[in-house]
Amino acid sequence: MSLLVVGSVAFDSVETPFGQVEEVLGGSGTYFSTSASFFTDVSLVAVVGSDFPQEHLDFLRSREIDLRGLQTAAGKTFRWKGRYGFDLNEAHTLDTQLNVFEAFRPELPAGYESAEYVFLANIDPELQLDVLNQVKKPLLVACDTMNFWIEGKREALLKTLPHVDILIINEGETRQLAGEPNLVKAARSILAMGPKTLVVKRGEYGVIMFTEHSIFTVPAYPLETVFDPTGAGDTFAGGFMGYLASTRNLSEASIRQAIVFGCVMASFTVEDFSLNRLKRLEFDEVEERFRKFKLLTDFDGLA
Amino acid sequence: MSLLVVGSVAFDSVETPFGQVEEVLGGSGTYFSTSASFFTDVSLVAVVGSDFPQEHLDFLRSREIDLRGLQTAAGKTFRWKGRYGFDLNEAHTLDTQLNVFEAFRPELPAGYESAEYVFLANIDPELQLDVLNQVKKPLLVACDTMNFWIEGKREALLKTLPHVDILIINEGETRQLAGEPNLVKAARSILAMGPKTLVVKRGEYGVIMFTEHSIFTVPAYPLETVFDPTGAGDTFAGGFMGYLASTRNLSEASIRQAIVFGCVMASFTVEDFSLNRLKRLEFDEVEERFRKFKLLTDFDGLA
Repeated sequence: MSLLVVGSVAFDSVETPFGQVEEVLGGSGTYFSTSASFFTDVSLVAVVGSDFPQEHLDFLRSREIDLRGLQTAAGKTFRWKGRYGFDLNEAHTLDTQLNVFEAFRPELPAGYESAEYVFLANIDPELQLDVLNQVKKPLLVACDTMNFWIEGKREALLKTLPHVDILIINEGETRQLAGEPNLVKAARSILAMGPKTLVVKRGEYGVIMFTEHSIFTVPAYPLETVFDPTGAGDTFAGGFMGYLASTRNLSEASIRQAIVFGCVMASFTVEDFSLNRLKRLEFDEVEERFRKFKLLTDFDGLA
Repeated sequence: MSLLVVGSVAFDSVETPFGQVEEVLGGSGTYFSTSASFFTDVSLVAVVGSDFPQEHLDFLRSREIDLRGLQTAAGKTFRWKGRYGFDLNEAHTLDTQLNVFEAFRPELPAGYESAEYVFLANIDPELQLDVLNQVKKPLLVACDTMNFWIEGKREALLKTLPHVDILIINEGETRQLAGEPNLVKAARSILAMGPKTLVVKRGEYGVIMFTEHSIFTVPAYPLETVFDPTGAGDTFAGGFMGYLASTRNLSEASIRQAIVFGCVMASFTVEDFSLNRLKRLEFDEVEERFRKFKLLTDFDGLA
């Protein structure tokens, strides 16, 4: 098997200035695996409740996502409710019901221990470490986290980070984890915690990547209609890891291209609620937008 | 003559988390002309009071800036006092004393009417139009403005914009001028007001440029030490216009390179208070940092 993600599958209720939806398909594992499925085979480890409809399972299977690690537990599926104002960079959480996710213990099905590419979505760092103990020798481990864990489970997080190759977090989390307002200094301090690469998500400003010897930036794709930013970060991570798993090339040049593919995928997700845009996305649209990123950033006379 | 700037020369008092300075050399015209002087001949039209010291005039002359349009009026030089917190993107104005700048009426010395490249720094849009009436057929007119004029002198500004080729403003001003939160839509609406090109300054996120047919982005240069952002925008404009005036090439490729040179120059200004970093800057450092921008943004395997 190639790419493994451990994360959440959820029902999201979202309000933006452009509309609202109730209990639509969401969750970090859902966005990640759907996005990655455009590039490679992907296996999803997560939990849903007994209320999770066949329709969503059918969709995930239509993307050829391996669901052997998707547990169904008695009870309700994880629910999240949030609102965005005109500043679409920040979600205001209105309600979180963990439900079956509260007792979630990731158990990898037989065969999954040989996963080569692993993404640990934003879950308890103790569970992240637990997953890493179940896999043998992955070529690449990437991981997300959030303010809640940085503050509340800092020690567990610091134990997990030395086993992580690429940490993918947002700008506020970068500053919080390092305790340093300057992003370049903060990145250096986080690289000293273990990860060889730090990928910082900056919402409408794109992504900036730090390694010991280099910095790389990509803008977000400028869109006239940003409908709903929910899932953008996990969609980014899915495109990023999916591309890397498909090329089997971990050179810096390949990682940079993977970041651009991640931004491409995220730019589609935000064009509609839930995974609606990804559901009708064709791969030639992905390639076309990748080419547009070149025009967007080129100053060598290409444009 | 080649490049003309009309703007302010001021004494700035600035507090940042990293230190403070009192009544140091500042002003939009000062930053612009010093930055542009690394690329081309530049003429400065502005006003100072009788308290303006010889030392500063000597510095501007050492940069071979033409000061025939720098009036000296009885009274005190314009003074600005501001503070920045750890979020260095936003200045908090503590005090503004317009002094001799209050009665400033730009009068172009003989010969200046043939200026080919004109930059109207952030002054009253009526004065900006007045300057444009004094020049004959410039090849390129660029202009800055601010929230104060957008709100208080909107009609005058809307009369000036049709005569402006390139409007250079920040992100908040873009949204305010257009009355539209989405940047892409806001840009389209501003292009309909007259300018063929809109250059949006985004502080630590760099610059995004809009034309009718294209969008171009450049990140800010990632710095470990941002000492004082004062003057970054005018330094950017100076590098941008200075480069364009030096190449005499207004193709999109040339404008994109000019934007990168503007970002390069701004990245030096913020490394120290006042114009201190520009005072000790060598052109090979400029070229070296331009090359670093390529590495920072390349995803074609160069890095």
